[in-house]
Amino acid sequence: MASPRIRLGMVGGGEGAFIGAVHRIAARLDDRYELVAGALSSTPDRALRSAQALGLAPDRSYPDFAAMARAEAARPDGIEAVAIVTPNHMHAPAAEAFLDAGVHVICDKPLTATLGEAWRLRDKAHASDRIFAVTYNYTGYPLVRHARRMIRDGELGAIRVIQVEYPQEWLSTPLEQTGQKQADWRTDPARSGAGGCIGDIGTHAFQLAHFVSGLAPSHVLAEVTTFVPGRRLDDNVQVLLRYAEGARGALWASQVAPGNDNGLRLRVFGDKGGIDWRQDEPNRLTWSPLGEAPRLIGRGTAAMNADGQRVNRIPAGHPEGYLEAFATLYSEVADAILAKRSGGSVDAAVTFPTIGDGFAGVAFVDAALRSSEGGGVWVSPDR
Amino acid sequence: MASPRIRLGMVGGGEGAFIGAVHRIAARLDDRYELVAGALSSTPDRALRSAQALGLAPDRSYPDFAAMARAEAARPDGIEAVAIVTPNHMHAPAAEAFLDAGVHVICDKPLTATLGEAWRLRDKAHASDRIFAVTYNYTGYPLVRHARRMIRDGELGAIRVIQVEYPQEWLSTPLEQTGQKQADWRTDPARSGAGGCIGDIGTHAFQLAHFVSGLAPSHVLAEVTTFVPGRRLDDNVQVLLRYAEGARGALWASQVAPGNDNGLRLRVFGDKGGIDWRQDEPNRLTWSPLGEAPRLIGRGTAAMNADGQRVNRIPAGHPEGYLEAFATLYSEVADAILAKRSGGSVDAAVTFPTIGDGFAGVAFVDAALRSSEGGGVWVSPDR
Amino acid sequence: MASPRIRLGMVGGGEGAFIGAVHRIAARLDDRYELVAGALSSTPDRALRSAQALGLAPDRSYPDFAAMARAEAARPDGIEAVAIVTPNHMHAPAAEAFLDAGVHVICDKPLTATLGEAWRLRDKAHASDRIFAVTYNYTGYPLVRHARRMIRDGELGAIRVIQVEYPQEWLSTPLEQTGQKQADWRTDPARSGAGGCIGDIGTHAFQLAHFVSGLAPSHVLAEVTTFVPGRRLDDNVQVLLRYAEGARGALWASQVAPGNDNGLRLRVFGDKGGIDWRQDEPNRLTWSPLGEAPRLIGRGTAAMNADGQRVNRIPAGHPEGYLEAFATLYSEVADAILAKRSGGSVDAAVTFPTIGDGFAGVAFVDAALRSSEGGGVWVSPDR
Amino acid sequence: MASPRIRLGMVGGGEGAFIGAVHRIAARLDDRYELVAGALSSTPDRALRSAQALGLAPDRSYPDFAAMARAEAARPDGIEAVAIVTPNHMHAPAAEAFLDAGVHVICDKPLTATLGEAWRLRDKAHASDRIFAVTYNYTGYPLVRHARRMIRDGELGAIRVIQVEYPQEWLSTPLEQTGQKQADWRTDPARSGAGGCIGDIGTHAFQLAHFVSGLAPSHVLAEVTTFVPGRRLDDNVQVLLRYAEGARGALWASQVAPGNDNGLRLRVFGDKGGIDWRQDEPNRLTWSPLGEAPRLIGRGTAAMNADGQRVNRIPAGHPEGYLEAFATLYSEVADAILAKRSGGSVDAAVTFPTIGDGFAGVAFVDAALRSSEGGGVWVSPDR
Repeated sequence: MASPRIRLGMVGGGEGAFIGAVHRIAARLDDRYELVAGALSSTPDRALRSAQALGLAPDRSYPDFAAMARAEAARPDGIEAVAIVTPNHMHAPAAEAFLDAGVHVICDKPLTATLGEAWRLRDKAHASDRIFAVTYNYTGYPLVRHARRMIRDGELGAIRVIQVEYPQEWLSTPLEQTGQKQADWRTDPARSGAGGCIGDIGTHAFQLAHFVSGLAPSHVLAEVTTFVPGRRLDDNVQVLLRYAEGARGALWASQVAPGNDNGLRLRVFGDKGGIDWRQDEPNRLTWSPLGEAPRLIGRGTAAMNADGQRVNRIPAGHPEGYLEAFATLYSEVADAILAKRSGGSVDAAVTFPTIGDGFAGVAFVDAALRSSEGGGVWVSPDR
Repeated sequence: MASPRIRLGMVGGGEGAFIGAVHRIAARLDDRYELVAGALSSTPDRALRSAQALGLAPDRSYPDFAAMARAEAARPDGIEAVAIVTPNHMHAPAAEAFLDAGVHVICDKPLTATLGEAWRLRDKAHASDRIFAVTYNYTGYPLVRHARRMIRDGELGAIRVIQVEYPQEWLSTPLEQTGQKQADWRTDPARSGAGGCIGDIGTHAFQLAHFVSGLAPSHVLAEVTTFVPGRRLDDNVQVLLRYAEGARGALWASQVAPGNDNGLRLRVFGDKGGIDWRQDEPNRLTWSPLGEAPRLIGRGTAAMNADGQRVNRIPAGHPEGYLEAFATLYSEVADAILAKRSGGSVDAAVTFPTIGDGFAGVAFVDAALRSSEGGGVWVSPDR
Repeated sequence: MASPRIRLGMVGGGEGAFIGAVHRIAARLDDRYELVAGALSSTPDRALRSAQALGLAPDRSYPDFAAMARAEAARPDGIEAVAIVTPNHMHAPAAEAFLDAGVHVICDKPLTATLGEAWRLRDKAHASDRIFAVTYNYTGYPLVRHARRMIRDGELGAIRVIQVEYPQEWLSTPLEQTGQKQADWRTDPARSGAGGCIGDIGTHAFQLAHFVSGLAPSHVLAEVTTFVPGRRLDDNVQVLLRYAEGARGALWASQVAPGNDNGLRLRVFGDKGGIDWRQDEPNRLTWSPLGEAPRLIGRGTAAMNADGQRVNRIPAGHPEGYLEAFATLYSEVADAILAKRSGGSVDAAVTFPTIGDGFAGVAFVDAALRSSEGGGVWVSPDR
Repeated sequence: MASPRIRLGMVGGGEGAFIGAVHRIAARLDDRYELVAGALSSTPDRALRSAQALGLAPDRSYPDFAAMARAEAARPDGIEAVAIVTPNHMHAPAAEAFLDAGVHVICDKPLTATLGEAWRLRDKAHASDRIFAVTYNYTGYPLVRHARRMIRDGELGAIRVIQVEYPQEWLSTPLEQTGQKQADWRTDPARSGAGGCIGDIGTHAFQLAHFVSGLAPSHVLAEVTTFVPGRRLDDNVQVLLRYAEGARGALWASQVAPGNDNGLRLRVFGDKGGIDWRQDEPNRLTWSPLGEAPRLIGRGTAAMNADGQRVNRIPAGHPEGYLEAFATLYSEVADAILAKRSGGSVDAAVTFPTIGDGFAGVAFVDAALRSSEGGGVWVSPDR
């Protein structure tokens, strides 16, 4: 029998927001959630119009997350999970309120705007029995799962070199000065935190490298740069990464790289072979066993391993994209919530990013900024 | 305010079916439909289990399409639209029953298994005021819309040459003899009709070329071949196309082409430039203005025209795929149904494929088979 | 010890010619030839200036090929081989003159301008003991040799489908009307023969498919079209190919396809796998074993077989190109000439195209034109 | 009239050497040189056999470079230029000897094995009126010239970010322990100098970035790593680059990156656009004007600028490769030598890399090693 849908609320994501709509499609795609409540905007009019457009009941459109957490906790049919898709500075207070209200949290990245918040939120999440997912969405691509499994199974051998990059073009000009909403808050320290490019996309690159390789750097050294005159946060970052196990990495993220939209690419090289994956052509992974011809692993083909197959939806050759990968995280969170519902424990195989990943991302931003402010020196990220 | 969702039924698409699940995701992705009824399988047990798994009310899971059409027509909350996703031979009788019941029809391709059925169904659809959509789903890709608009606007000039192909690997062996369900019915003339490869994917290639170029061939000449021993239908077809306007085309579809999953590719060349689009990398279109450097038009970028933008969901660089394109057709049909609901006329700009496209596809299969059976001669497709 | 260089003459290839310079570099690249005589242009002034520019001795620059054949035959240090690089209509008379003079012939393609000439020249070449090479230069690419060997060794199994294409953009406008030399003679039936696009590049595609697959079609059906107003020869051709062994092929060549420079591409599919090779990225071959992940065979890598290695010059990753492939034919001809010199027989393993390939190309043009003039009917090429 | 060929000698490049054969083809390709003398190996037997195989006169095959410099200087028909293609440690003494003998020098890279040698050799070269070329061969690709000209003309605007990389796979195992000749000397500090990967290919990447961008870093910070157990020199290097003008760069070179043969790639981003070029597909440059669709600039097309055209040999679509690019440097050096011969001055437009580039490469290696030995700190390269 079909499991009843999970009752979902949303904080942020009203009119004009980009990522809120993505979360809603992601939640809907596999039919595991029903959106029933929201505090969709900090502007009351916009919140109301957004709620109407989404068909929410009027009494479940709230002026703010605190009211929402209180009211929903008091309803017998209150939300079971909340998606937090506000600008970064609101993540921590909202997440804390919903954890307190006993609601599972699905939080956009980066986890928080400051490292202090991240410490507190991690403590609270650990003390809670609620699920806490952080939507590092690129982890949902089937071939990312395939790559991760390959490395876990030793198919690359000992990891030597990691090269990860995430170039974009869109902030090559002072777009924030035109009032463009996405550019506006992403370049505003008050809402984004101290990291610009590094927080917005550098953390994605960092987390993807960690997710796939299983390695976390002991030390980082960063050049954090702002190229566009008048910009208040960084728009380009180059980072060297040292791993305790001996591997070496380099990370580049940029918002001033014309010709790139979301050019996230991960390459990992071990003593037995290398892999190469690009987010903008996510249905193909290049696997180069040492000394042999490179192989093109197609998503959905017989060459994709079980970890990839588990999150695959459609046959090979019909591309899956960003929304499907995002939806995979939502479905995995749904599995975990159902396990909780039925009193069971969350499946250890569940692989969506959690509070620990969220914390590590904020700690990476903090470390990179400390390194750069120190003139480009080696520092250790908090753990 | 959010429009109420359209009440949708489904014929076929039960357990083990591939395309039924795709239609359901497509219907759900933009939140325009609610699946409320089904005749999901011709096997009663499987129909029931499938209905339960999808959360249908028990009294709206029907043993066959005829019962479903009758019962739903009698309900005040009966379905407004039906998705027909059975093997080909059931398309015509099911579609006729629902048209008679006043239900809008969304029918998978090819429209029917025989040309005679296609004639009758087209007549009936034309006589009805119901919407009749045929899910030639590749027409839903934003850059396919972009390409079509370019040609309509004369950006390629007079069309000279069309090269379209759709190679697959999956039937290189006699897979149908293993009991694989998809291979089984697709190679069975009783369920597929007289065309195998040409009906299953040749029609997609044919329709895409027509959709984008606006041209329909006056004559075709086909080599229709069966390579795999024991196979009952064709698995490879090469077709030459003559257009009244003077253009020349070639079409190749194959199910015995190792290395290809769904390698649909369309190239159109005019006297002012050429375009090149591949379904397996659908977020990029190459546009080559005569004498200039080729340009990579990215889905979602500023270089994409209004027809592409209209069906675009997410920003450039985050790939959209097959499900999104499929969902676009569902959303366009929803727009048309809402227009009908409100007594208005269907927007002329709506571009989803309709009964005419469905007919043309069947007529193409018929013509190709006549040509090949005649030894490879020129014939005219019925109009 | 280094073998002395072979004394080479050239007919055609003076100032303003393209292919003559290519032949000279090809002859020089492996240091196997010394250019010592020429009838470089039918215009005496141009012939003289060209000879001076190339450093030929004044008494070995001839006004025409007949004088050159006579005089060189009479010299003790006369040329051993001649490269014929004139427009097509001069190939046959020049080749005949040099065969009569006992000189080995390296002739550009197509072999002759008419089928009658091809018959006569083939007879004469067979009656002679001189080497007769035809520079179907694409056969010189290492990965083309690799592909040919794979098929000979049965790695693709029984061949089912061949798709070959050669699109170009350059004649999309009536360039010949501007006086452009290359366009002028290539669109002039008096100098090119009856085939335009089909003779110039269609024959390359045809020959490459034959060279790699080992198959020759028993029947062809062609649509031969002239799109550019005022053009005297065809500029686009689409051909279906039937092979006695049961395989089916399609060939497309075009000079009116914007976005393509020399887009020669060959795909061959058998019951055990498929290959895909493109001339504009010649250092990579995609090999798709049935049911497995496609593999990228890099030129010069360990994955390249002995036939590829034999004609490989530099390590993998440093691209070889058109001139290297061309030079390979010259070097293989040099090997054959040396074998003749020393009284031995020509190595059976030598794989450069010969008079038989030249004849087959002209017969293909003839058959395609007959087919098209007959309204698009099946015809058999002469053998 | 044809210019007489330049008399060329060679030091190194005997049997079993790779780069010597490349230099010889490069010298021959455009017919500007005649190889007449050599000290081809430090092993007398091998030197003799190599000279015979190349057809050198016996009295012009020398046991060592010193003897060769002396003897050739004394001949009226002595060499005018020498190509030095030995392991690195021999570059400086050989180059000095030939400069002293009044012979133009074409020296492989890196210029010398130590910074001290580089200082002395640069002084000597500056004091001499002889031409001193360093074969940073990737600078010879037409699209590299095109890119350089674009930046000089301001088409990218102010440069912000440079990403350059050169990954290889070939030393992923301790190949030097098998006796493989290329691996042997390249991992031997006595013959290579203190830099392994960084000297062999890191310098190529460094120089290419400089050549194209026109920028030289004021500071570098390097992680220089040896991954393969027992290896005596580095096999992976990641470097951050700071430019006085404000740009930031990152360089990665690796010999332990499976799946890469010679994956040199350069990306440069300015405030008006970005470019992307890869050595393994050198006939295409991606040019992304800010906010517009990326354009594929094909070598030899009308979209290639005059600097590219000047060194272009064959029409678009017929790929040029490594040997052609290498030959371009030889031809440019020939132009310069001819200018010297005729008493003129060397054309300011001549763009082949010279002693300054050679010095900068050695200084880069020195700086990177100092940085890494210091624990990964910022240092300034010598100028």
